[in-house]
Amino acid sequence: MKTYLDCIPCFVRQALDAARLVTDEEALRERVLRDVLRAASEMDMHQSPPAMGQRIHRLIRKLTGQSDPYREIKQRHNRLALELYPQLCARVRGSADRMEAALRLAIAGNVIDMGVDARLDEACVSTVSAEALSAALDGDVRAFAAALSRARQIFYLADNAGEIVFDRLLLEQMPVEKVTVAVRGSPVINDATFADAQAAGIPGLVEVIDNGSDAPGTILDDCSIEFRRRFDQADLVIAKGQGNYETLNDLEKDIFFVLKAKCPVIARDLGCNVGSLILRRSRHAPVAAFETKETEDADSAVL
Amino acid sequence: MKTYLDCIPCFVRQALDAARLVTDEEALRERVLRDVLRAASEMDMHQSPPAMGQRIHRLIRKLTGQSDPYREIKQRHNRLALELYPQLCARVRGSADRMEAALRLAIAGNVIDMGVDARLDEACVSTVSAEALSAALDGDVRAFAAALSRARQIFYLADNAGEIVFDRLLLEQMPVEKVTVAVRGSPVINDATFADAQAAGIPGLVEVIDNGSDAPGTILDDCSIEFRRRFDQADLVIAKGQGNYETLNDLEKDIFFVLKAKCPVIARDLGCNVGSLILRRSRHAPVAAFETKETEDADSAVL
Repeated sequence: MKTYLDCIPCFVRQALDAARLVTDEEALRERVLRDVLRAASEMDMHQSPPAMGQRIHRLIRKLTGQSDPYREIKQRHNRLALELYPQLCARVRGSADRMEAALRLAIAGNVIDMGVDARLDEACVSTVSAEALSAALDGDVRAFAAALSRARQIFYLADNAGEIVFDRLLLEQMPVEKVTVAVRGSPVINDATFADAQAAGIPGLVEVIDNGSDAPGTILDDCSIEFRRRFDQADLVIAKGQGNYETLNDLEKDIFFVLKAKCPVIARDLGCNVGSLILRRSRHAPVAAFETKETEDADSAVL
Repeated sequence: MKTYLDCIPCFVRQALDAARLVTDEEALRERVLRDVLRAASEMDMHQSPPAMGQRIHRLIRKLTGQSDPYREIKQRHNRLALELYPQLCARVRGSADRMEAALRLAIAGNVIDMGVDARLDEACVSTVSAEALSAALDGDVRAFAAALSRARQIFYLADNAGEIVFDRLLLEQMPVEKVTVAVRGSPVINDATFADAQAAGIPGLVEVIDNGSDAPGTILDDCSIEFRRRFDQADLVIAKGQGNYETLNDLEKDIFFVLKAKCPVIARDLGCNVGSLILRRSRHAPVAAFETKETEDADSAVL
């Protein structure tokens, strides 16, 4: 997805929010903001929004001298999600359709996004989780389950810390032997890195690799050779969150985008309302990916 | 008032809104936004927000080649307010305290501000007017009336087109022989110029001059010599709207600021909630201005 003009005021606001979170020095916050304004004035609008996010947060890390300014927040979000994990696990086990319940909770976990809203607590995540189990889901869970069952290699692109604990619920419903999870290569905002995957207990469940990049999305040209090789090999990709949607939705690849639509630009691009729970198969998926036998019992194959 | 960091994302959003209003050409909108981002990256934060507003809207006029891009909107707002005028007039006449009713409606008129919200219709203005007559008013109407009565020369700084019709209601309750109204010197956003004062019938009521400036506020250094002379001579100034507050609130001058607090930065500066109806005497007014006889029958003197 390209960057829309509407993204620009949002970048500036996000940069200010991030600067405030990272430093108490007003002069430093002003410096961050001025540098971001200058960068935004020259940005390539054909690039996806995470390209600008990458630039902004590199700048913040450089100016503040902090290599991982969101580390404590990420740890807090992981703890918060891990405290909820047992009860969410029980909800999934008690559901008639475990795959759908886990998928809904994985989308609920996507609410943990410092890029969109810096305020977050247990009550909020708990409420969102409960809502996600009953709200309308914009997507075809049967087609998703069938694709999982048919795929030979599944590449699961994680999004944020905290959220990755919710991803574990979904991973536990998947054919784990076929799944590799990818996290960011180095810290950017509150995006999940290897440390967060470890905190969530993912490496004990499936293989985890990192993408070698510090973009808050998946900019393939910026990712490691190994990551791109695995991405190419996978016949099914599951991409969590807005950043991964923004960077991958124009690819010719079978991708299921799993996210909560948190901003009007994304919602417009997806043709949904802000706040919608989205399971969306890529528009440009190879035709073969859609050649599904309607009679296939997808649920039994993946549970 | 200086420019706060919070004003910056707002400038960028306003610039985009304005660019969209003024041209359908996406490339031109992008050009406006890029130029505004560059200007914002270099701005002097000691200047008041209207200094940046002036720069943004000069840029928009230059790039689009339109000297008064909000002309039609201003005319529409004047018409809209003039349609409501007879019934508002009747409301003032029917009020126990005409001065307070007129003051409240003048504040309600301040909702007509394209800089803050581009959507506006008769129903909205009508609702806001009704609310303004009953909502809490943060200010001392008796002190205001007493100051009007005591003043020798009153300088009334208008704000927006449309709103200026509401100002007429207040002007009609004032000792008109002592009052001069000032409007902007040339078009900027939907701020009232001489044409709007004429549309509202102000010149038939009191003297009207313009300030010689195209800033959406009153930047004295940017105003004409004649305006500054009149400003200095006046022993009481009434300043409508946020732009006039932002540019004049640090002056040592007896000024009553009359506005609806429409943004969090202004509300914080005023120590009120967003949406509050404000009648606030300048913090830096000369001490003599406050030497009021409590027994003075201010109401009868000005009605």
